[in-house]
Amino acid sequence: MSKLRGFQKLTFTYEALKTWFEALQIKPCRAITIPLTEAYNRVLAENAVADEDLPRFNRSAVDGYAVRAEDTTGASQQKPLLFRLTEEDELTDTAHRQAKQVWTGHPIPKGSNAVVMLENTKQVDPKIEVWKQAAPFDNVAREGEDIKKGEVAVEAGTRLKPHHLALLNALGKSEIEVVEKPKIAILATGNELAKVNEERNEKQIWESNRILLTAMCCELDAEPLDLGLVKDDVNEISEAITLGLKVADAVITSGGTSVGGLDLVPEAVNKVGKPGILVHGIALRPAMPTALAALEGKPVMVLSGNPVAAITGFEVFARPLICKLLGLKKEEPRPTVQATMTRKIATALGRKNFVRVRVTQKNGEFQAEPVSAKGSGNLSTMTKANGYIIVPENREGLAEKEKVTVNLFGDAEM
Amino acid sequence: MSKLRGFQKLTFTYEALKTWFEALQIKPCRAITIPLTEAYNRVLAENAVADEDLPRFNRSAVDGYAVRAEDTTGASQQKPLLFRLTEEDELTDTAHRQAKQVWTGHPIPKGSNAVVMLENTKQVDPKIEVWKQAAPFDNVAREGEDIKKGEVAVEAGTRLKPHHLALLNALGKSEIEVVEKPKIAILATGNELAKVNEERNEKQIWESNRILLTAMCCELDAEPLDLGLVKDDVNEISEAITLGLKVADAVITSGGTSVGGLDLVPEAVNKVGKPGILVHGIALRPAMPTALAALEGKPVMVLSGNPVAAITGFEVFARPLICKLLGLKKEEPRPTVQATMTRKIATALGRKNFVRVRVTQKNGEFQAEPVSAKGSGNLSTMTKANGYIIVPENREGLAEKEKVTVNLFGDAEM
Repeated sequence: MSKLRGFQKLTFTYEALKTWFEALQIKPCRAITIPLTEAYNRVLAENAVADEDLPRFNRSAVDGYAVRAEDTTGASQQKPLLFRLTEEDELTDTAHRQAKQVWTGHPIPKGSNAVVMLENTKQVDPKIEVWKQAAPFDNVAREGEDIKKGEVAVEAGTRLKPHHLALLNALGKSEIEVVEKPKIAILATGNELAKVNEERNEKQIWESNRILLTAMCCELDAEPLDLGLVKDDVNEISEAITLGLKVADAVITSGGTSVGGLDLVPEAVNKVGKPGILVHGIALRPAMPTALAALEGKPVMVLSGNPVAAITGFEVFARPLICKLLGLKKEEPRPTVQATMTRKIATALGRKNFVRVRVTQKNGEFQAEPVSAKGSGNLSTMTKANGYIIVPENREGLAEKEKVTVNLFGDAEM
Repeated sequence: MSKLRGFQKLTFTYEALKTWFEALQIKPCRAITIPLTEAYNRVLAENAVADEDLPRFNRSAVDGYAVRAEDTTGASQQKPLLFRLTEEDELTDTAHRQAKQVWTGHPIPKGSNAVVMLENTKQVDPKIEVWKQAAPFDNVAREGEDIKKGEVAVEAGTRLKPHHLALLNALGKSEIEVVEKPKIAILATGNELAKVNEERNEKQIWESNRILLTAMCCELDAEPLDLGLVKDDVNEISEAITLGLKVADAVITSGGTSVGGLDLVPEAVNKVGKPGILVHGIALRPAMPTALAALEGKPVMVLSGNPVAAITGFEVFARPLICKLLGLKKEEPRPTVQATMTRKIATALGRKNFVRVRVTQKNGEFQAEPVSAKGSGNLSTMTKANGYIIVPENREGLAEKEKVTVNLFGDAEM
């Protein structure tokens, strides 16, 4: 009966994370070489170093005439200076003013050190008039000014965005070492659940946490693996977890993690091996019944079956875990916005509370409207919200007009 | 010669967009049906309506005993009330107090309207003691409280995030109508460019704009198609654009769009058909030489070869275009942060200026440090920055300590 009496003690989220990570000593997944063209959003495994200067020669930044800057001294529209044109790759005749026509992005000839824009010249065959004085390196992209040979172009642990790929490509790289996507095995449990498109009885509801957790893995560019849906049966659950440990870098389960008669997942985890469950019962709302475990040196996360609690548990525990497995320099934050509470809300003291809000913009100010707390497990509270506020353990709520930081979902329109 | 004298007139970005979109009357790509399991990040094409109530029955939110709330009146730890246990799916004996054990997520029996948590009961075989009074619907998720049958669960034009997928799945949906990914054909032009892994001569640099624009399409979940790299040759360029129009919903070129002798892309566009170039020369820095065109009712975007200008042109023109093709309810903004300028900067009056900055956090305040303006075409200014500020046409710069809105890149760590 005492098994049914709730958690004896709740662990703070930071303590829980510390215990879990210390037991596991998470390392990034192994590095693999892939074509740069497939590297968007992947995480760089090693510093990418420039093999040459970029640009690798002094390059014109405009269409115009390459000259020696000192030859232009005194030139103006009233007092143009005449330059001889050359087709050579070098200005050789230092005794006379020489110019060579150049196009944007092309190298300037040896001996030249500036480019006069076309609009500041006039062709007077076979010479040109220069109407404007140029300082050294005017309109010139200097050799190595973007990146010097030997410099780190992109640091290990960087998530590769379009501009990183372009820089690596400009440096001549066609392949790159990235961190393999962490494989996350996902299991749903519960007699009350049925798979969509299969039979369900009168007492069952459609299972929807696998698609939820799968998509949350995709959001971080991890690779979700489906362990299916199993009944509230210790053997079935531990077999599925055992399989998950074979194929994946981490296992996430949902459902059966409270302290009721059908909450068999923690028992099933402990049946698989040692050390098993490390923390069970978190000072977190929603998501109190979350458990964290280690098996065969791999992390196992036991999330609530309540979808909103599962999302919260994922945010707090799976997100930092996956960021570590990905080898990211630091945990990727959600975008945030500073907003003003439209009304006060109460939260539980001694718990970290995730409060769903809808942020709207009004006269350039952001306002956060709490999404009705009734039915905290309802998915529609997530789809009506566009972000959440984290209320810390030492607060009992938020005041009306309080300034808060809202963590935004990916689709935040405001 | 006048062709080389720069643009006669620059068009404001909002005017350019208006002209372009009015000429094109962009519609979302066609709707296709796909499995819900593949719908992460896709855009919903039609309102998704609930076919049944969610939950579809009154469901227990906890482990405990389902009862008639009115039967618990006066119950307390000092004065427990005795209830008979039943295994039936209905509390039939209205003359006596009845209770049925229920688990989280399972239906409560007919005739019951509340659940007393296990911790507030005690088993006294064959009855139970109830220690706490319950109000109607305490610990019950009511039929339809999440979503009612016939309600719109997710609106057309929504980018599907994990919680949307979960809600649709919970409603029994296994397939969904999404907007097809817009196909964007990407062409690079320029004699000065060589493909990585192929030969390059002394005057060539590695081409890197295709991978840049390809990844920027991926960022929005559009489908990039590669038209390759062609020389500064009107025929080659127009052939590539013609091919692009056959296979894609839009064509983006980079390079050859200024007004110099090798800037042949606008001419090549006009050679393909009518109306051709609609706007050329934008009051935008960088990205002034951008051109917008329409051919065969499809949008064509002629971006600068300078990679930073290409990024800017993409942000200003391709991003809203792709959002329209995706059928998004409204343009997806980048995440933003309010920050304070660390120093003043000058910008060009009459132009929309994109200023790259690095945002850092200091004592909870965000500070925006402009990334050195020297070498505005250098990709390293993008990789050193983590966001940009848009300085409007009526400003000549930003003041030190000015409060600004920074648009963050995808990898923003601060």
